[in-house]
Amino acid sequence: MSADELRHDSSDDRRAVLEANRAFYEAFNARDIEAMADLWQRGDDVTCIHPHRNVTTGHADIQRTWRAILTNPDQPKIVFAAEEARVIGDIGIVAGREVVAGVPIVATNIYQRVTDADLTDNADTPLDTWLLIHHHGSPVLHTE
Amino acid sequence: MSADELRHDSSDDRRAVLEANRAFYEAFNARDIEAMADLWQRGDDVTCIHPHRNVTTGHADIQRTWRAILTNPDQPKIVFAAEEARVIGDIGIVAGREVVAGVPIVATNIYQRVTDADLTDNADTPLDTWLLIHHHGSPVLHTE
Repeated sequence: MSADELRHDSSDDRRAVLEANRAFYEAFNARDIEAMADLWQRGDDVTCIHPHRNVTTGHADIQRTWRAILTNPDQPKIVFAAEEARVIGDIGIVAGREVVAGVPIVATNIYQRVTDADLTDNADTPLDTWLLIHHHGSPVLHTE
Repeated sequence: MSADELRHDSSDDRRAVLEANRAFYEAFNARDIEAMADLWQRGDDVTCIHPHRNVTTGHADIQRTWRAILTNPDQPKIVFAAEEARVIGDIGIVAGREVVAGVPIVATNIYQRVTDADLTDNADTPLDTWLLIHHHGSPVLHTE
């Protein structure tokens, strides 16, 4: 096991990823456009697929889609159903289930670990932030 | 840059991930159930979301869903449209576009690098295999 792997307990990582995932749904339900922007990695290669939509690429364009969704007064809230997180290196993957206006939704959320290197000298545990690099939501219409 | 990062050129990794992704679609169109099984990491935590379906977890259950799809005589082939790969550490992410029976589909495919450690003593370049750990497909019904 490498020093890098020893630094983190994997259950801590999973917990941190699930916390980031909850913050995502909290930002959605609070219609908090700024919080949503900050949950995503800034960059041109992040990707987002909304239910029944095509791929949107890049932080600016993705944020435009969230702005449209979160400022839509008819947009129902998300009721959180179930989730599980896997962490492989600096990537956290959540395959989650939600319910929106009675329709079950499945979501793939991918997070990347960002370590604040400036803080590692001052603390035993480096502060990790998990930022969204991909979201894919789709409705479940067939449950058999 | 760590020794591990130096070992691989990132464009080589992206190419290898896209090659694995093409093998996935080839197995689909060839209705090759065994090839599909081998493209996936064996394990209980791999996940798969077919269009309009819920999450299926674990290699055995996922393989059952592929068997049903690939043995269905009415299942149309996938026409491949566009794809881009990102590689972060040992994870490759493809957000791809396909067309199935005229319907555009977006897919999230996540691959994990598996290095054959037994071969690294015998070759300059370790043989990496990229195995699927997550697939999520959904139809694009709104293109505006």
